[in-house]
Amino acid sequence: MTSHGTALDDVRTASAVVGMVGGGQLARMTQQAAIGLGVELVVLDPDPDAPAVVAGATHLAGRPDDTDALAELAARCDVVTLDHELVPLAALEALVDAGHAVRPGPAALELAQDKARARQRFSEEGLEVPAFEVVAGGDTAGVERFAQRHGWPVVVKAPTGGYDGRGVHVAHGPADLDGAPRTERWLLEEHVQMATELAVLVARRPSGPLVVYPPVRTTQIDGICVELVMPADIAAEVADAAVRLATEIAERNDVSGILAVEMFCATDGRLLINEVATRPHNSGHATIDAAATSQFENHLRAVLDWPLGDTSLGGRSAAMVNLLGPADPLDLARVPLALADPSVHLHLYGKAWRPGRKLGHITALAESVPAAVASARAAGELLVAQ
Amino acid sequence: MTSHGTALDDVRTASAVVGMVGGGQLARMTQQAAIGLGVELVVLDPDPDAPAVVAGATHLAGRPDDTDALAELAARCDVVTLDHELVPLAALEALVDAGHAVRPGPAALELAQDKARARQRFSEEGLEVPAFEVVAGGDTAGVERFAQRHGWPVVVKAPTGGYDGRGVHVAHGPADLDGAPRTERWLLEEHVQMATELAVLVARRPSGPLVVYPPVRTTQIDGICVELVMPADIAAEVADAAVRLATEIAERNDVSGILAVEMFCATDGRLLINEVATRPHNSGHATIDAAATSQFENHLRAVLDWPLGDTSLGGRSAAMVNLLGPADPLDLARVPLALADPSVHLHLYGKAWRPGRKLGHITALAESVPAAVASARAAGELLVAQ
Repeated sequence: MTSHGTALDDVRTASAVVGMVGGGQLARMTQQAAIGLGVELVVLDPDPDAPAVVAGATHLAGRPDDTDALAELAARCDVVTLDHELVPLAALEALVDAGHAVRPGPAALELAQDKARARQRFSEEGLEVPAFEVVAGGDTAGVERFAQRHGWPVVVKAPTGGYDGRGVHVAHGPADLDGAPRTERWLLEEHVQMATELAVLVARRPSGPLVVYPPVRTTQIDGICVELVMPADIAAEVADAAVRLATEIAERNDVSGILAVEMFCATDGRLLINEVATRPHNSGHATIDAAATSQFENHLRAVLDWPLGDTSLGGRSAAMVNLLGPADPLDLARVPLALADPSVHLHLYGKAWRPGRKLGHITALAESVPAAVASARAAGELLVAQ
Repeated sequence: MTSHGTALDDVRTASAVVGMVGGGQLARMTQQAAIGLGVELVVLDPDPDAPAVVAGATHLAGRPDDTDALAELAARCDVVTLDHELVPLAALEALVDAGHAVRPGPAALELAQDKARARQRFSEEGLEVPAFEVVAGGDTAGVERFAQRHGWPVVVKAPTGGYDGRGVHVAHGPADLDGAPRTERWLLEEHVQMATELAVLVARRPSGPLVVYPPVRTTQIDGICVELVMPADIAAEVADAAVRLATEIAERNDVSGILAVEMFCATDGRLLINEVATRPHNSGHATIDAAATSQFENHLRAVLDWPLGDTSLGGRSAAMVNLLGPADPLDLARVPLALADPSVHLHLYGKAWRPGRKLGHITALAESVPAAVASARAAGELLVAQ
C-alpha cells in the first residue's frame, strides 16, 4: 500500500479524505477533481496499476468484497463512495452500522445494483418504466406469457451484474432464448421503440440540496454508449420533463453523490426510466470540459456534503465519443493527430489496450451540436484508426 | 523513489513521459492536466511530500542542481521542462548536449533567470522596457547617477533568484539603500508610474506554432500577485498591443512551452515589459476554469510539440485571488464556506500552512468582471478568515 501521507501527517494538508471502492477510470477522473479541492482520494482496488492509482490516488490493495479491506478504507476516510456497483450491500450496511459515512447509502445503491428491484420501486412510486415482469431464470413459458401481453421482441435482462450491454438479450420469439443470461432471475421488459435515449445527471448532498446537469442525448451500439451530445438536442418540454424525473428519483431515494438516470424517449411519446447509476457515469463525461463544474468534482462535493458547483454549460455545445479499443493495439503515437483540432479535449484512462475496452474519451466543444459531433468523431477516428 | 510504473511496463499505457524540475504547485496543476492527456509526469524534487507528488506525479528525489539526478530525469522522460527557474543553465545545457529535449531551451530560460540579461536582450531587440542600468552590487554612486537621469525613486533589483517581491527594493533617495539586495550585480530601473499591470501568456511549440491567451490584469501587493481578472478590462488596442508584444518575445527567443510576459501600462501611455517567465505562471491560473484549455495542458502539449488547445474564454469573465497563508494556521474545515457560491472554483496546493505562503487560489466565473471579483474575494476571505 502506498500512501502519499496527507491523511496521516501531523499537519493535515488535505481538506478531506474520500475513500472510493474501485480504481477505474471513474476514480481516475475523480482523482483529477480531487487535486483542486485538496481532497485525498484513497481507492480500494486489487490492481496497483489501476487507472486511478496511475493518476495518483492513494492505493489500498483489496477486492470490493473484502470486508476487512472495506473496514480499513472506511477507517482512513471521512466518507466512502463507489466507482462501480459490484460491492456487496451487506458489506456497506456493516460499515454504516459501524458509524461510517457511506454515500450513496445502501438503499440508493440497490437501485443501481438490482435492475428488477429498481423497476419495482419506480413502478410503486408511480414513475413510468417500460412494462416489465420478474420471472425465474429459464422460465421460457413466463417469457411467452409476457410476449402475449406486450408482443415480441422481449428484452431478457440479468437483474444484477450486467453492464455495457452484457447481461441483456433481445428475444425475437419463443425459440430465441439461447442467448438469454444464465441467472437466477430474469427481468423481462417490453422492447421500447425509441425516438431517442437521454441521460440526466443530478448531484445531491445527503442534507438535501441538489443540482442538475442539462440532459444529454446518448447513442448506444450493442448496449455500449458510443457517443453523446450535451445539451440534448430535444424539445425544451422533454428536457424539462427529464430533469423533473431525475430530480424526483434523487429525492425519493435519498441519493447522495451523482445519480445518472438513463431514459428512453419512446416514439409513442412516453418518457421511461431505463437504468440508474448512483455514481459518476459515462453519460456525464462531457461535463469535465463543457460544464462549469465536472460531475466528478460535484460527486466529491456531494458525498462530503459540501456546497455544489455550477452545472451550466456557458453557451457551447459538446459532443463526446468513447474511445473503444480497436482490433489491433492502440498506437499512442497517434495522440497528437487527435489533438490537431483545437476544440478537441482528450481523456485517456491509462489502461492497457484490449479490443472493445473503454480506453478513453474525446470531448469537442463547438457553437453547434453538429459541429461538435463532427470534431469529436473525426478526432476519435484519427486516434483509433488501424 | 516511487514509480507508478507506466513508463517502464511492457505495455506502455502513457502517451508520453514528461520530466519536470520542481514539484511545487505549478507541477501539481500540470499533473492534473497530465491525467487526461495520458501523460506520465515525473517531478524532480527533494521533498517526497511536494505538492505535485501528493497529487500523484511520479517522484524522483533530488535537488534541481544535482546533475546526476537531472541526467536520470532526462533519461526516463521524452522531454524535460521546469516548474521554477532555479536550475543551473550549465546543467540544462549538458542535457541538451547529451541529446535530450529540454524545453524551454537554456537560451529562453535565461530570460526568466536573469532579469538584467532579459532587459538587455529586449532592449537590443527594440522592445520597450523601463529605463535600466546594470551596476555592481553596492554601487551607491551608480544609483545616484541613475537617479540624476531618471529621478527618484529608483528600483534596485537582484538580477537573479528573486520572486514574489523578494530581491526588489524601491530606494526613495541616496540614504535609502540599506534594504537593497546583497547581490553581485544590481539591476537599476526607473520607477514606472503604472496605470495597470498586465500579463499575457503564450504557449509555443518548438516547431513554431503558438496560441495566446486573452490578456489578464493583475494586482500586486508588495510584489506578490494577489488578484487578477481575465480578460483584462482594458481598451482593445492596448490588449492587442500586449498580445503582439508577447508573441514577438516568444518568437524572437524561440520559446517552447508557456511564456508569461508581465507588462506595465504606464500612465504616460507606454506599454513596457516588466518580467517574463518561461513556464506556467500565477497570472495564468484562471485558465484552468475560464479557458477551453488550461495553461498547464497547453504547456504539456507545447513542450511535447503536440498541437495546442483552444485558449478562448467562452464569453464569461474570471477573477482569481491567491490564497496567502494567514497569520494563524489555515482551518481547512472552512473549505465548504468558500464553496457556498456556486461560481467559485477552489484550487488547494496541499502545502503546509505558513504565513504569507501561497496555499491555493480561487477562481470565480461570472457575467462581468466586477461580479467575478466580488465572488472570488468573498470566497477567499471566508476561507482565510481568522
